[in-house]
Amino acid sequence: MKTDIDQLMGEANLDVLLVSGPAGHNPYMTYFTGLVHVTHSYLLVKRGEKPILFHGAMERDEAASTGLGTVDLTNYDTIKILKDACGDQIRARMMLLQRIFQDHGVHGRVGVYGKVEVGPFYAALNLLDEAMAEIEIVGEAPDRSVLIRARTTKDPDEVKHIQEVGKITTSVVADVAGFLTSHQVKDGVLVDREGGALTVGDVKRRINLWLAMRGADNPEGSIFAIGHDAGVPHSTGKDDDLIPVGKPIVFDIYPCQTGGGYYHDFTRTWCLGHAPDEVQEVYEDVLDVYETVYAAMVPNTPCRDYQVMACELFEKKGHPTVLNTPQTKEGYVHSLAHGVGLAIHEAPSFSHVETNEDQLLPGSVITHEPGLYYPEREIGARIEDTVWMRPDGSLEVLAEYPKDLVLKMKNV
Amino acid sequence: MKTDIDQLMGEANLDVLLVSGPAGHNPYMTYFTGLVHVTHSYLLVKRGEKPILFHGAMERDEAASTGLGTVDLTNYDTIKILKDACGDQIRARMMLLQRIFQDHGVHGRVGVYGKVEVGPFYAALNLLDEAMAEIEIVGEAPDRSVLIRARTTKDPDEVKHIQEVGKITTSVVADVAGFLTSHQVKDGVLVDREGGALTVGDVKRRINLWLAMRGADNPEGSIFAIGHDAGVPHSTGKDDDLIPVGKPIVFDIYPCQTGGGYYHDFTRTWCLGHAPDEVQEVYEDVLDVYETVYAAMVPNTPCRDYQVMACELFEKKGHPTVLNTPQTKEGYVHSLAHGVGLAIHEAPSFSHVETNEDQLLPGSVITHEPGLYYPEREIGARIEDTVWMRPDGSLEVLAEYPKDLVLKMKNV
Repeated sequence: MKTDIDQLMGEANLDVLLVSGPAGHNPYMTYFTGLVHVTHSYLLVKRGEKPILFHGAMERDEAASTGLGTVDLTNYDTIKILKDACGDQIRARMMLLQRIFQDHGVHGRVGVYGKVEVGPFYAALNLLDEAMAEIEIVGEAPDRSVLIRARTTKDPDEVKHIQEVGKITTSVVADVAGFLTSHQVKDGVLVDREGGALTVGDVKRRINLWLAMRGADNPEGSIFAIGHDAGVPHSTGKDDDLIPVGKPIVFDIYPCQTGGGYYHDFTRTWCLGHAPDEVQEVYEDVLDVYETVYAAMVPNTPCRDYQVMACELFEKKGHPTVLNTPQTKEGYVHSLAHGVGLAIHEAPSFSHVETNEDQLLPGSVITHEPGLYYPEREIGARIEDTVWMRPDGSLEVLAEYPKDLVLKMKNV
Repeated sequence: MKTDIDQLMGEANLDVLLVSGPAGHNPYMTYFTGLVHVTHSYLLVKRGEKPILFHGAMERDEAASTGLGTVDLTNYDTIKILKDACGDQIRARMMLLQRIFQDHGVHGRVGVYGKVEVGPFYAALNLLDEAMAEIEIVGEAPDRSVLIRARTTKDPDEVKHIQEVGKITTSVVADVAGFLTSHQVKDGVLVDREGGALTVGDVKRRINLWLAMRGADNPEGSIFAIGHDAGVPHSTGKDDDLIPVGKPIVFDIYPCQTGGGYYHDFTRTWCLGHAPDEVQEVYEDVLDVYETVYAAMVPNTPCRDYQVMACELFEKKGHPTVLNTPQTKEGYVHSLAHGVGLAIHEAPSFSHVETNEDQLLPGSVITHEPGLYYPEREIGARIEDTVWMRPDGSLEVLAEYPKDLVLKMKNV
């Protein structure tokens, strides 16, 4: 949580954090600013002091609304700086940062953050590191970073945001279920009243529409993958595909707050009308592992333990997994979970690699998403909820939704 | 255009380009991959050779659909690399890149690109530069970069995408105009049939909805700014504000293709019902400068000339401008235009700084957006279209829309 930042900076031996980039779709910046329209900005966090947002003149009102300290970049006359740098934009960027650092007494180890164009920053930060003997620029590893570690646990306000997006998400999932099952079936695929075939593209356009109606963005799209595609975990499904009855559909939806804030991550696997036995069996194995591991989760334990547990449970049921068949593309081929917040994938990690030291903590918000994949057999199944570990260590699914595999068609 | 890349690499003395990050909302990667769901990837472009996309195992089908060369990152056993790096993610990232570079005979100057978390890349690229004597990592300045320069001119496919988003944009603008003018007026503000007041937030939610319906994303939100806010160019307007008649509303909308592709940028200024004389006068000055500068634009000329021309025209009409009053917050306070493509702001730049060497070229797609701002007088006016310079040097507004200041209310 934000209140941990000073302590984490101490542990990481960092004196200053420098966050760059716009406020939207840039988790580190959004973490401090909230969702405001600030596009050209730097944020300076000195240990123990109030963060300062450096903003463009035209965005002064938006910057003021963040409640952070603010400095108008106009004060630095960036046009003159660019002239002094003989038009070299890299050098000008370095000089601007140097002046900001000098004015604010920055020295010591400076951690750098923010989703930005890497090239110019790589060059400007190297120049800055060279130009200022009193600082050292530090790029922290993702799993060790002060801000990732702060964001690993959520305060109640953040949980509320994730839950609100979750309510929108499950409402749209219900919309999709209702939409699919109200279709007719002809030659094994869904058709409308006029006999026109429904496509995956049609469904996805409606998902975007219904999300927008309810107040969410869908910047990364969604997965609506059928048959063979359902058996490839990150295949998103093909727009032109028709929608059959009796085949597994993996529907994974991960929208965020309008403008790029908190995410929610959710998956259901459906068979329309009926499910073949072998799909039913695979699905029940997934559901069983979902429930067994969920029941086992307790606070202050290594996340990797739960991934190992899921692998062992799946292997006992006869499925290959990444634990003992590292490069398998069949069976259980991914991680059990990941943190969810301002990024769709964030800490804690549930990777089973031995170097993964992430802990499941009170305040964690994570997915829980076991799955099985057999692309050659046209089978895939995943069940995913977004789960909060409450301060008391108990778990709460942030947006409940039924886990039925078979969706009954209404007109058949 | 893409066909210029080899030549531009030669001019910049670059042997290899390395692009990092996901395919969506990451212009440099999207430029090569198109809009596909590839999230963990590197792209290697050796001068004169077909680009190679390195992708995660789960995204192999999506990677294959790009038509690029592909390499599954599973081949590199990233889990073993992380072990060899003793769990240090920065070192592991460096080692992965080192092996990729060795396997593909990378040497010489390597330009780095992509919108990514800056910290880990800063650290890993410095390690890589140190570890491989045969390479030099180069972060190019934004205005000089090979890929920015390639993207400065658009091929017909790209123009088609921008025009398609433009059609969606102007359709939604028409929706908004129809929605506003169909309201009643009570105490000087818009109300619905039941007398409930309409707010800026209500309008913005509908904008997102209508964009989604028509197939566009709105990742950066839109500007719907009234009165004082209209006088601050990047103020986006306050959600709780009511919508008055007879005051200027600056409506700036800049959506992109669903999933994060090409953008379109568009602004109109409206007064509902009627316009006060002083708003009308300011608006006509903007429209006059819009038309005069538009008529003057010819190919292969410096972009900054048009910004200087706009400033001089506005100054002749008695308005302060950034040309002679650099830090003014009244009058004409921004640039005339900017390139539009996979980023909402890209080259060419129309900044009047003397170091700006960008040219207006056949194939350029730019905004054209003069404006005037008087926040204390609660006046702002901007007119913006997205314009293509055709191969023959003539200009085409990519999505035409009327430029009336006053929108007549239907029920008054």
